[in-house]
Amino acid sequence: GAPMLGVAGGYGVALAAFLSDDVPAAASRIAAARPTAVNLGWGVLRVQAAYGNSDSARLAPLAALAEARAIEAEDAAASDAIAAHGLTLVPAGARILTHCNTGALVSAGQGTAFAVIVAAHRAGRLAQLWVDETRPLLQGARLTSYEARRAGLPYAVLPDAAAASLMAAGQVDMVLLGADRIAADGSVANKVGTYSLAVLARHHGVPFVVAAPVSTIDFGTPDGAGIVVEHRPAGEVTSYAGTQVAAAGSDAYNPAFDVTPPGLITAVVTERGVARPVNAGNLRVLGVSGDTGARGHDTGDSVFSVTSVER
Amino acid sequence: GAPMLGVAGGYGVALAAFLSDDVPAAASRIAAARPTAVNLGWGVLRVQAAYGNSDSARLAPLAALAEARAIEAEDAAASDAIAAHGLTLVPAGARILTHCNTGALVSAGQGTAFAVIVAAHRAGRLAQLWVDETRPLLQGARLTSYEARRAGLPYAVLPDAAAASLMAAGQVDMVLLGADRIAADGSVANKVGTYSLAVLARHHGVPFVVAAPVSTIDFGTPDGAGIVVEHRPAGEVTSYAGTQVAAAGSDAYNPAFDVTPPGLITAVVTERGVARPVNAGNLRVLGVSGDTGARGHDTGDSVFSVTSVER
Repeated sequence: GAPMLGVAGGYGVALAAFLSDDVPAAASRIAAARPTAVNLGWGVLRVQAAYGNSDSARLAPLAALAEARAIEAEDAAASDAIAAHGLTLVPAGARILTHCNTGALVSAGQGTAFAVIVAAHRAGRLAQLWVDETRPLLQGARLTSYEARRAGLPYAVLPDAAAASLMAAGQVDMVLLGADRIAADGSVANKVGTYSLAVLARHHGVPFVVAAPVSTIDFGTPDGAGIVVEHRPAGEVTSYAGTQVAAAGSDAYNPAFDVTPPGLITAVVTERGVARPVNAGNLRVLGVSGDTGARGHDTGDSVFSVTSVER
Repeated sequence: GAPMLGVAGGYGVALAAFLSDDVPAAASRIAAARPTAVNLGWGVLRVQAAYGNSDSARLAPLAALAEARAIEAEDAAASDAIAAHGLTLVPAGARILTHCNTGALVSAGQGTAFAVIVAAHRAGRLAQLWVDETRPLLQGARLTSYEARRAGLPYAVLPDAAAASLMAAGQVDMVLLGADRIAADGSVANKVGTYSLAVLARHHGVPFVVAAPVSTIDFGTPDGAGIVVEHRPAGEVTSYAGTQVAAAGSDAYNPAFDVTPPGLITAVVTERGVARPVNAGNLRVLGVSGDTGARGHDTGDSVFSVTSVER
């Protein structure tokens, strides 16, 4: 998960500092480990900067660790704030469909989209959680079902391709999921299948909501075309747990992520408020509000709609 | 596969006749084994009628077997005719996306949609076959990849939810798949995920073509609402090859099929011609043409468009 990649990247740099490794080299290696989630490089850079800015070589590792701990604490606080903002978009009796895993396993707090879902459950508004199994690595079946069961949510797992028939049957009130990277224009890179759900949600008039910390927004990437999507080995699709499933020698198309254009996204929920509609201007206000310490949702600016999503 | 269900159902009744079983009871049991594909009941009824209409109790099993063999031969011939009609819809350099399995494993001939794909390959028009893995039972990964490799096609397997990003990248010229049942209005019940692809194809302006024998058309079911969709055990989704994948106790939404409305379908290819646009009138002509022995595509009626699908 993207938030945890930021936390782990930061701690990785701090670890290199404590081990007296070549910290810039370690930071470069860690930042390049996965190409899509911007949080990884962001966490690495923050800790590397704290390390480099230390006046004392002896204290530099401690400065790095302190910064990594700060990232973790901020992520936990962001999770709580995302849950609070996101809850305002969830109607009573909501049947929410989610994809991949966005809970405590991928965050220092309760997660992103999953934090909103847990908040909705606690507020008595969650009638059903639909969990996409999320092929090929089954993060939904393996991780989200575990977290849903642990949290006592009403849920069921489904094959990703069955989501459309649920929508056609009127059984989905909202699609709610996370993001690995959000470009400056609001294009969202997230686990493959996300874009598919966005198109399906639009066709069925179902709100499509993305929940992510502001650190996921990459203002240096102008739009979706600039997002590098990681392609992963064919074996993840053609075999399963070591057993060949497809004919031997089969090739596979196995992108880890896809990119959803902002026009298909109803709202982006962050720890600083909700961008709705999703566009460069509204996201920029969220980014700037962080630089100044202001809270986006307190500015009174109409771009931060926190009213319920209407169907 | 639907065509093979008709063949197998017919042979099942013939077998009961040879074993001196209660043929009507056996026919009822076989016909009720799967609810969605209409071909099963159709094959059973044909052989049961041949058995019942025989003047001689001794010869009745032979009459049943002859009828089952006739169904098999007709299905093989239908497969060839479907391939010929379908080929007229495939442009040069086609990149075709398919779902589930529609080849020789589910037909007495080369199949339905897969027969068209093989014909396109032989005609030098197939640039790429995209094979949806087709969760939960992976008929695409397990069966279609086997048939594609055996036929020497250029192909790759993909997670079902990755199809949308292929379409967005302009890598799909046509979606081509089969049907388990077609209602009188042209609503198509087929493997779950078919409806999802139809919505995605419409969004991306990609032609969506269904290939099936006329026996798949159920004129007794007026529309999609009348099609019973089989729901299958949760374990097919929550476990894999005996290994629990989702949290123990997880429920699952596991429909075997979904229903695609005719408005999302570019054309239905049958052994008697192509219905385009897909509506009750055009399908009815195909059904009637069979009763009279006429070939739909020879009637000169404009409903049988066999020109290439334009993008």
